[in-house]
Amino acid sequence: MFEVYAFATPNSIKVPIALEELGLPYRLHGVNVRRGEQKAPGFVALNPNAKVPVLVDPAAAGGGLVLTESAAILVYLAETTGRLLPATGEGRARVFEQLFFHASGLGPAFGQAGFFQRQASEPQPLAIARFSAEARRTLAVLDGVLAERRFVAGDAFTVADIAHFGWLWRREFAGVNLEDTPHVARWYEAVAARHSVQRAVERVNALVPQA
Amino acid sequence: MFEVYAFATPNSIKVPIALEELGLPYRLHGVNVRRGEQKAPGFVALNPNAKVPVLVDPAAAGGGLVLTESAAILVYLAETTGRLLPATGEGRARVFEQLFFHASGLGPAFGQAGFFQRQASEPQPLAIARFSAEARRTLAVLDGVLAERRFVAGDAFTVADIAHFGWLWRREFAGVNLEDTPHVARWYEAVAARHSVQRAVERVNALVPQA
Repeated sequence: MFEVYAFATPNSIKVPIALEELGLPYRLHGVNVRRGEQKAPGFVALNPNAKVPVLVDPAAAGGGLVLTESAAILVYLAETTGRLLPATGEGRARVFEQLFFHASGLGPAFGQAGFFQRQASEPQPLAIARFSAEARRTLAVLDGVLAERRFVAGDAFTVADIAHFGWLWRREFAGVNLEDTPHVARWYEAVAARHSVQRAVERVNALVPQA
Repeated sequence: MFEVYAFATPNSIKVPIALEELGLPYRLHGVNVRRGEQKAPGFVALNPNAKVPVLVDPAAAGGGLVLTESAAILVYLAETTGRLLPATGEGRARVFEQLFFHASGLGPAFGQAGFFQRQASEPQPLAIARFSAEARRTLAVLDGVLAERRFVAGDAFTVADIAHFGWLWRREFAGVNLEDTPHVARWYEAVAARHSVQRAVERVNALVPQA
């Protein structure tokens, strides 16, 4: 049984989607980042970087594995099962290209755009303009990719689709919509309709206390 | 012969370091990002995301491969040669964990800290404070990792060390030093002393026109 420490966040959602997709049993542990629980000593002992998600695989060789970084968790689960990541060739290279484009490009742009629009302590027009433009730019790059491919790394659904879904699912936080990116819109609808995604969304949303 | 499109940048340097480390021949093509050459149509045809580095492997199966995202290139080169990345187990998971921590955490923090300190059109105290603090925080997390490991992912030098070296090499841009992170300082000195790193630094620095 995998243990997953998570919340209803763009990075957290990736792990239960992958586990649902792979049919692997897991237990979800809520870490309420709105209350700062990711900075509590007990959690920092699991992840010194103080971020969700964290995966614990008690059955890993060597006495168990505690793994952080959502995309590293996706690669681990894909390689453990031999699914959602081509074993060789260009298809494999494209998955890593998209995983890193999300991790270093689209993800940080969406995150900072949302922060400066919604959470900064004073108005920050220059930073808002910078990160909103970068969010739109990276989304347009992804639209170009999806103009030529059914899924982000090729013909098949892979962990790279799961990675991009995280921030696209939370795009309202970043002030982004899909009106000008029809290929992303088509892809998003297809991914959001998967049973695995719906089940994962339901389970992470249930971690959020109702007001 | 690999073709590498690059400049003297934190992300570019990773690719020639890996190629030198692996003893693979390559030709470097300078893309002067100070002059915006990464946005020229000829380059955007190679990488629609308008970023260096790009690797071209004409010998890849299927008629050649054009690959972007520095860390995806590192994974591709490591898997093509079977070196610098453990094949299985916790060691492999730690490499991906560090690659994604660099790509999504330390790298963007250093980059934005440098931008707001040096290149923003107006003073941006809040953004400078935010990203400088995040650069210091992620560096401290890396110091904690290196307090317990010789290299960032374990006992052996891997592509994850190459990835972290990129921004540590350009830390002055981010206004960061290693005074309070002795384990990072020890590691940096060891990595910078490698012949592969010295040769790669020399070759990318030679791409910068002399004033």
